[in-house]
Amino acid sequence: MIEPTLQWLADLEAIKRLKYKYIRCVDSKHYEGIAECFIQDATATYEGGKHSLAGRDAILDFLRRSLPAVVTAHHVHHPEIEIAGAATAKATWALEDYVIDLKSNYSLHGAAFYEDEYVKIYGQWKIKHTGFKRIYWERWNRTELKSLQLMENMHAPPRK
Amino acid sequence: MIEPTLQWLADLEAIKRLKYKYIRCVDSKHYEGIAECFIQDATATYEGGKHSLAGRDAILDFLRRSLPAVVTAHHVHHPEIEIAGAATAKATWALEDYVIDLKSNYSLHGAAFYEDEYVKIYGQWKIKHTGFKRIYWERWNRTELKSLQLMENMHAPPRK
Amino acid sequence: MIEPTLQWLADLEAIKRLKYKYIRCVDSKHYEGIAECFIQDATATYEGGKHSLAGRDAILDFLRRSLPAVVTAHHVHHPEIEIAGAATAKATWALEDYVIDLKSNYSLHGAAFYEDEYVKIYGQWKIKHTGFKRIYWERWNRTELKSLQLMENMHAPPRK
Repeated sequence: MIEPTLQWLADLEAIKRLKYKYIRCVDSKHYEGIAECFIQDATATYEGGKHSLAGRDAILDFLRRSLPAVVTAHHVHHPEIEIAGAATAKATWALEDYVIDLKSNYSLHGAAFYEDEYVKIYGQWKIKHTGFKRIYWERWNRTELKSLQLMENMHAPPRK
Repeated sequence: MIEPTLQWLADLEAIKRLKYKYIRCVDSKHYEGIAECFIQDATATYEGGKHSLAGRDAILDFLRRSLPAVVTAHHVHHPEIEIAGAATAKATWALEDYVIDLKSNYSLHGAAFYEDEYVKIYGQWKIKHTGFKRIYWERWNRTELKSLQLMENMHAPPRK
Repeated sequence: MIEPTLQWLADLEAIKRLKYKYIRCVDSKHYEGIAECFIQDATATYEGGKHSLAGRDAILDFLRRSLPAVVTAHHVHHPEIEIAGAATAKATWALEDYVIDLKSNYSLHGAAFYEDEYVKIYGQWKIKHTGFKRIYWERWNRTELKSLQLMENMHAPPRK
């Protein structure tokens, strides 16, 4: 571990906040907020490379197409952040995600390890690369469990 | 982000601890510990305003009535804490909660965003307001899954 | 809380990293990495004392026997770390774990409170004792839910 400094601790905090903002904006489908988290030529490899995206626009386009049909709750844990020099960093994180696909009526549940890269530009940390590899994921058809009820969904129109 | 200082970093840590203590005391039903987390005129709005409570006594009364019938596991993530001045702060958090209602035999599972306010009194951070809005929550009848067994429950009397 | 110092904040960060590395190595079944987390005479009491292990070798032996048959995702939250002096610390954590037993085809889901002890040796924090008590755990037979499919498992041989 590098010699602890205020700057190092503040950078760790800032990188965590960046990740938390990204996840918050994904789960609340706030696309402008997601865009603020990335540099222009950022890359993303979701699902271990199944979805490989080059450029912030491509990432945003992918999310704008994917997110409307799903309710998502992503939670990230266990940040192991390595800061290299004044303006670059990388990190591993643990992910748990739970997704309700409203069209197919499947629930998807899984865990993964993120491997991210960050850069600091004009004093602000941004995502340069994000990607994750699954520990596992599984799915089941929600209609099979007759008693299962989705009681609230912040993205749905209010029930009459 | 404000200029990093030791005090700022220590305040962030103290506010996280306050939240963690509150959650630990809820899940272990340690009401005296819960009470220590709030100022006297604290407010709480659980479930997006469905339960709106004014005053620490009202909050404690609500929890003392609600918690005995349920096994709860609350986990909070992604703290985005903004400290304003020496003695006030606000934060957003992500929540995942899993609740087993022992009376109705339903499981409840959900995710939400907390919006909290804190104040520092005699050197100690306390909760001034806590409240959350759901991303989603769902429930199912545990008896429908015949093989489902609750193997351990710290709040139950030991099995003979 | 003790007077905030850079060293105190750096120690908190280092102890969190130690825990995150331990969990990452358990879930990815990286036994050499797990071994690095413990002192030689470390002790572990998993499942509230059901598995009580004395010594790093005994802990590793237990994990080498237990982990191959399961897919695990452990997530730890809410660190409340108390540093006592220059080289000893203790902490509570919240745990959520989800385990898929591939042999019996059961899913296990639970929450617990960890109580850990740490020591700093040659400048590195290590686990002296780890143990947890359950809030609850439950299990169900995966074959009962006909639509349930394990779509990915990082520990399985790739599907043909």
